Amino acid sequence: MLQKIHHLGYAVEDLDAASRVYREHFGARIEVPETVADQGVKAAMFRVGESRIELLEPTGPESPVGRFLAKRGEGLHHVAFQVEDIEARLGELGRDGVELLDEKPRVGAGGTRMAFVHPRSAHGVLTELVEPPRD
Amino acid sequence: MLQKIHHLGYAVEDLDAASRVYREHFGARIEVPETVADQGVKAAMFRVGESRIELLEPTGPESPVGRFLAKRGEGLHHVAFQVEDIEARLGELGRDGVELLDEKPRVGAGGTRMAFVHPRSAHGVLTELVEPPRD
Repeated sequence: MLQKIHHLGYAVEDLDAASRVYREHFGARIEVPETVADQGVKAAMFRVGESRIELLEPTGPESPVGRFLAKRGEGLHHVAFQVEDIEARLGELGRDGVELLDEKPRVGAGGTRMAFVHPRSAHGVLTELVEPPRD
Repeated sequence: MLQKIHHLGYAVEDLDAASRVYREHFGARIEVPETVADQGVKAAMFRVGESRIELLEPTGPESPVGRFLAKRGEGLHHVAFQVEDIEARLGELGRDGVELLDEKPRVGAGGTRMAFVHPRSAHGVLTELVEPPRD
């Protein structure tokens, strides 16, 4: 069911500072940042093997990442796994009693379809399922 | 420098319960658990694409994962990136002023060599560098 780690989302206070650290110390090639209004974040991404790291700065304190930073400070916010046929996967998880934050997929960055599983159903890890756009 | 996500370490209270959740709901093929005495954990792993998830149950409350659970509860404990020539990478990071928890590599599970970067130098994420054994 889980095909690969699609990306990891890191919550950061300052996107420019975090981008500099990963570029200068860890050799990351940071892509042009984009704002995902729906999720209240400005995001800068870089590729690591078949996966990506998304550095996420909240656009305001009441966004999910803003609340996470206020409560826990900087750190890993979510883990996203690539799946096939996300509707079918969400249906199965729902029938299994897994608690979903999104019963139906939403449209994410780059035309992906994505949904979050509640951390309570994934041993404390906010878990995203992502299906890339077909071709 | 970062070749791929080698693994993610998830801190869990109960390895059997967590293994069951990932097996039954997420289709994980969990490998036989092993105890890593040096790090005070019992670990069960499963493959996701080119990476792995390591479910980590502490062998005691004073181990690093035990203290993490007491403070923050279950969740992502660390992110491990595969690198080439770990000594050279640690040398560069040290010269860059990056705070290292291990100045020299230690031997990890499966004969890997590994070292941790302090979360303060990686925007809140406990970051491991891993070099696999040369055949």
